[in-house]
Amino acid sequence: MSKRKPLILVTNDDGITAPGIRALLDVMSKIGDVLVVAPDKPQSAMGHAITINSTLYLNKISAEDAAVTEYSCSGTPVDCVKLAVNEILKKKPDLCVSGVNHGSNSSINVIYSGTMSAAVEAGIEGVPAIGFSLLDYDWNADFETIKPFIEKITLEALENGMPKDVVLNVNFPKLKKDAIKGIKICRQAKAIWAEKFDKRVTPQGKDYYWLAGEFINQDKGQDTDEWALANGYISVVPVQFDLTAHHSIQELNTWKWNE
Amino acid sequence: MSKRKPLILVTNDDGITAPGIRALLDVMSKIGDVLVVAPDKPQSAMGHAITINSTLYLNKISAEDAAVTEYSCSGTPVDCVKLAVNEILKKKPDLCVSGVNHGSNSSINVIYSGTMSAAVEAGIEGVPAIGFSLLDYDWNADFETIKPFIEKITLEALENGMPKDVVLNVNFPKLKKDAIKGIKICRQAKAIWAEKFDKRVTPQGKDYYWLAGEFINQDKGQDTDEWALANGYISVVPVQFDLTAHHSIQELNTWKWNE
Repeated sequence: MSKRKPLILVTNDDGITAPGIRALLDVMSKIGDVLVVAPDKPQSAMGHAITINSTLYLNKISAEDAAVTEYSCSGTPVDCVKLAVNEILKKKPDLCVSGVNHGSNSSINVIYSGTMSAAVEAGIEGVPAIGFSLLDYDWNADFETIKPFIEKITLEALENGMPKDVVLNVNFPKLKKDAIKGIKICRQAKAIWAEKFDKRVTPQGKDYYWLAGEFINQDKGQDTDEWALANGYISVVPVQFDLTAHHSIQELNTWKWNE
Repeated sequence: MSKRKPLILVTNDDGITAPGIRALLDVMSKIGDVLVVAPDKPQSAMGHAITINSTLYLNKISAEDAAVTEYSCSGTPVDCVKLAVNEILKKKPDLCVSGVNHGSNSSINVIYSGTMSAAVEAGIEGVPAIGFSLLDYDWNADFETIKPFIEKITLEALENGMPKDVVLNVNFPKLKKDAIKGIKICRQAKAIWAEKFDKRVTPQGKDYYWLAGEFINQDKGQDTDEWALANGYISVVPVQFDLTAHHSIQELNTWKWNE
């Protein structure tokens, strides 16, 4: 890491007013020069959605003399990263951090998460990136406890440099500081959401549905993020965006494709 | 494959009225019993978004005596799969096919694609799944040419069974039948969208943006989907939803996490 202060892009999926991004901003302001570009409304579970059939708005919401420049964006978390890198900065920041998400993005949640998709988008664009999430959906969750860990993880990432084409998915257990056992590198647990739709009827008599799933961890491995979080550790999963199942190419080549 | 006709779920991201899903439906109706659950409006580039902060509607749009039951859904492609499996069928279909997408889902597009996210969601839920895309954005694209290939690929998948935790991303080049050289198993090319935002001004004087990127393939490998498509082949990429970058865990364990 050079002596120059790193330029850090901060985003999230809970929206620019969420306490989670404020906590992240507190930490990042100590480490580097910060730009915030975050959704103007909650964008949870937006996955890697981008806005291609509609327009995008950016609103500078910080004062001219504010220490940190902040933009709210009408789009998705991924839109925020694209606009920040390509339109506002017109260069790559040294790091992109996303979160702190109000709620877990461990295991299969990584694939639905707007927080992690923002980090993944930064990774695709060649920007080192980390997504942070706290296992507490409460708007008034305790982010103070995890701030020193966020700082430690960020400094380690800046110091070591990120593995190529990898972003980090960091999840914090909802625990008091003394109960946190440390940081553990993990793999994504094999878990699913068993969906139960809550079927209701509108005042006009029309059926509608709410998604109401139950998280089921089918993975008993002790090297998973679910295990780490259940056992008092902060989980760090390296996430890639080459989705190729390289291990199955050989098997697929035995199929009779061209006969 | 048993003698029983397979139960096939058909969805897409261009919306239930798109010619691409009609072509897919033609082929699947020859192979099995079919249920269609598809978005009631275009949902391209929705990635793996799900609807958690709003309600979902299902509308049965087929006649009672129709050969194929069809529902339009107010949600995303992933919502369609979740509703189909968990609410309409209340059991797993034998196969889920998504598409035929109007436009490419090769390379990094897999991560933005609603078509592929529907297939990936099926895979997560334990349903063998294939996403089909044609490299032609035209609403009146020629789907007739590719129908025999869709049938062949689907029958091979039913015959062989899908590799565990893998779904297939199939892309067709925009070529006449005689020019198609065959089917090739590939890896996802390393490519990016270099974004250039088109900045405009509303009649009221407010700036807004259109996403207007350029696709750049940085990958010269001849084992990629981009190479296959550029050279007259139909590309088949096995896609996984364990996003863990397993190869980088060792490197990350050398960082000073707990000092």
